[in-house]
Amino acid sequence: MSFSAAADTLAANLEASIDRWVDWLKIPSISTDPAYAGHCRRAAEWCRDQLTELGFTASLVETGTVTDGKGSGHPIVLASIEPAGSYKGPHVLFYGHYDVQPVDPVSLWHSDPFQPVRRGPLPGEPGGERIVARGAVDDKGQVMTFLEACRAWKQATGHATGGAAYTIVIEGEEESGSVNLQPFVLAHKKLLSAADVCLISDTGMLGRNKPAITYGVRGLAYTQVTLHASNQDLHSGLWGGRCPNPITELTRVLSQLHDKNRRVTIPGFYDKVVPISKKERANWAALKFNQKAALKAIGLPPAADIGEKGFTAIEREWGRPTAEINGIWGGYTGEGAKTVIPAHASAKVSFRLVANQNPADITKRFFKWCKDHTPSGCRWDLTDHHGGFGVTTPIDSPAMRAASAALKSASGKAPALIKSGGSIPVAGMLKDKLGLDTVFMGFGLDDDRVHSPNEKFELDCFRLGCRAHAAFIHHITSA
Amino acid sequence: MSFSAAADTLAANLEASIDRWVDWLKIPSISTDPAYAGHCRRAAEWCRDQLTELGFTASLVETGTVTDGKGSGHPIVLASIEPAGSYKGPHVLFYGHYDVQPVDPVSLWHSDPFQPVRRGPLPGEPGGERIVARGAVDDKGQVMTFLEACRAWKQATGHATGGAAYTIVIEGEEESGSVNLQPFVLAHKKLLSAADVCLISDTGMLGRNKPAITYGVRGLAYTQVTLHASNQDLHSGLWGGRCPNPITELTRVLSQLHDKNRRVTIPGFYDKVVPISKKERANWAALKFNQKAALKAIGLPPAADIGEKGFTAIEREWGRPTAEINGIWGGYTGEGAKTVIPAHASAKVSFRLVANQNPADITKRFFKWCKDHTPSGCRWDLTDHHGGFGVTTPIDSPAMRAASAALKSASGKAPALIKSGGSIPVAGMLKDKLGLDTVFMGFGLDDDRVHSPNEKFELDCFRLGCRAHAAFIHHITSA
Repeated sequence: MSFSAAADTLAANLEASIDRWVDWLKIPSISTDPAYAGHCRRAAEWCRDQLTELGFTASLVETGTVTDGKGSGHPIVLASIEPAGSYKGPHVLFYGHYDVQPVDPVSLWHSDPFQPVRRGPLPGEPGGERIVARGAVDDKGQVMTFLEACRAWKQATGHATGGAAYTIVIEGEEESGSVNLQPFVLAHKKLLSAADVCLISDTGMLGRNKPAITYGVRGLAYTQVTLHASNQDLHSGLWGGRCPNPITELTRVLSQLHDKNRRVTIPGFYDKVVPISKKERANWAALKFNQKAALKAIGLPPAADIGEKGFTAIEREWGRPTAEINGIWGGYTGEGAKTVIPAHASAKVSFRLVANQNPADITKRFFKWCKDHTPSGCRWDLTDHHGGFGVTTPIDSPAMRAASAALKSASGKAPALIKSGGSIPVAGMLKDKLGLDTVFMGFGLDDDRVHSPNEKFELDCFRLGCRAHAAFIHHITSA
Repeated sequence: MSFSAAADTLAANLEASIDRWVDWLKIPSISTDPAYAGHCRRAAEWCRDQLTELGFTASLVETGTVTDGKGSGHPIVLASIEPAGSYKGPHVLFYGHYDVQPVDPVSLWHSDPFQPVRRGPLPGEPGGERIVARGAVDDKGQVMTFLEACRAWKQATGHATGGAAYTIVIEGEEESGSVNLQPFVLAHKKLLSAADVCLISDTGMLGRNKPAITYGVRGLAYTQVTLHASNQDLHSGLWGGRCPNPITELTRVLSQLHDKNRRVTIPGFYDKVVPISKKERANWAALKFNQKAALKAIGLPPAADIGEKGFTAIEREWGRPTAEINGIWGGYTGEGAKTVIPAHASAKVSFRLVANQNPADITKRFFKWCKDHTPSGCRWDLTDHHGGFGVTTPIDSPAMRAASAALKSASGKAPALIKSGGSIPVAGMLKDKLGLDTVFMGFGLDDDRVHSPNEKFELDCFRLGCRAHAAFIHHITSA
């Protein structure tokens, strides 16, 4: 059975596909707000029913503490399909999420976030027709491209995955920390371990008409540090020059986080870093990423191209670990003047990690570094806000080859092999707990306004996603 | 005429003195809140009427823009008294203020801030009977000690200042920046220039039963600096390591404000600093100030005794300039984790100055230093929140000798000669505009909770103040 029959079906049924996608988007499945728990469940049921209709064995798995048959967390959609008896290819675990981010500030939306609007670009906007709604792309829209590919295969051949072995996990807490996902994975380890590879559509392309496979994301370790001095706020006239000012001391400590070459100074920080290979450097250079233009787009001059010495901007984002201060606060921050020396000052400090850095290990090393730099007379409160492992997927696996071939079949172009400086903790967790590598085949664009007002997914991207998933099924069954 | 007659009158009339003091405290003259403008005017009128009763020529001077006879600022009480024809001593300008700080957090008060309570100490509190109210000490209570001394002299001799030349200025905006005081001083320059010395009771003693004269306060320059990088908040995964993080950059700049000896690194910062003389060092050492105990009282170990190398704690507070970060903020400061690189980060940076440092000059030098340290690709917004000159009063003037003798007559003890690390901008302004030195003869205690809930002034301190001002009149007329 070939890709072309499924592709023809997709093309013929595009309007119905969009209708289903819009249906799902109308359910306000905001996971972080308990008031939306009922909507989250409806969104999960909607997805389960689609999978059942497509021939999967699908159910909702309750999460968190379960009473009266319902969990304190949002349910996870778990589905699997009986492969064709002759199928010998990889078993694919498709992961996605049905929950969405909150919509505030709602006043900045041009239309109701949960009344999807189909329209062209506004004057000055690039791109073509799109659906505007919360979750349009992240991640309902991307999951829909997979579901519609299955529907086309089902219609064309009678089997939603063309006979291939697929397990489906669609969770409802990705936007609120995935706190119940690891317990779920451990509880279903035997079932999930049957998979050979994980496939996720929650990333982007290199640009319009530039399909890409993301073969790595960075890990994350997120911390909060508070430096305490006196047990009360002090008058800076009476105490200035006589005791530690925790703000001054905190700036003195944090200023030492990077050396003059912008390398992180924490001992052992780079021990587990896998160097960027010559081949990767050459591949990334060939993408001709324009850092100057990217800086200009955020209002910065070329002189703002700063970072670890000896690496290009894209190498620093995709292949090198970083330390960033995400927040800082202490003392008087209102209007005008107040001559206070505060009792404490705080900062949020996070690290983006590359394989094989362990977030817990990095946090431990950072906390030790803080303690080794404790200013005289002061003490720390150190809080671990956790994070996740980074992952790098081998680019020569059957699934990676299938994804590459699928994107070429779907778009006519060989996909770029890219990484992302962001973090997708679920991939690191699946690698850690199940040994699974993840292929990130995503169809978003940089300007999709993910997590922001007026989130959108363009129809060209949606169509490409449907075709690519249909082609992936073709190539994986031929693998 | 001797001090003893006035002292006897004071002792006999103490209860009536307290009643008048309490009367004034009941008027909620909070200057910073426009809703209290009427109360401020009532407090000014109350004071004017007292002075008139005592034989002064007293009036309210409107401030700010004046329409319909009333000013947009709070009125200043201006009064003078005809000296005895034979009087040849110094002309004294007595300065005080009738306005008070806001009372929040009001829930922490044990009684209504404007229903003064006379009571003993609570269990565990040191000291004796006191009046608890907003303004009890700062500055109505201290001004009252002067007014009651005048009343005793008036009763005993018929002349409220024993024949000496006094001009009185009681302003109503000290707690909200004294914005209309300098215009007032310039508009009344001829009248006020007749004074030879300024006398202020708005400071404290060295401790209970340890009277003191403060012969110097530090100046202040207060600024706000904001460092801008990108024109929008950025995702730390996508941008971490590729562009300036304004928090990181700000900490790197501010960490250079002090060198390893805790000296301020701004070029020229120390140019106008008058060194502490050998004699002053010896005098201050003789006070046996206990820095360890002071640190312990605010929860700090002896190791927290940090400051400019080569100086004792008291030398650093009284005789050396300092740089302090009074506030810092930027990025995400809420609960949990947000992986943001913010567009900007800010800090409040202030400097305590010693004669002859000019606040405007120091601010200018600091801003130049910021610009010289501008991180690559970033830009500054620099705001001057102003401040004031420091002052040091020559200790061998007739007024200083009179104050010293007065405190000895009133208490039986020679007063300590101390300085304060805080700032009283009015003194610097009077020196700058009128060439007047200021004698600070104050009766407060460190634990009076000035600006805080449950402000108090102890009756022993109040009594000492009344006696001291009465004795000062005696000694100044004998000078």
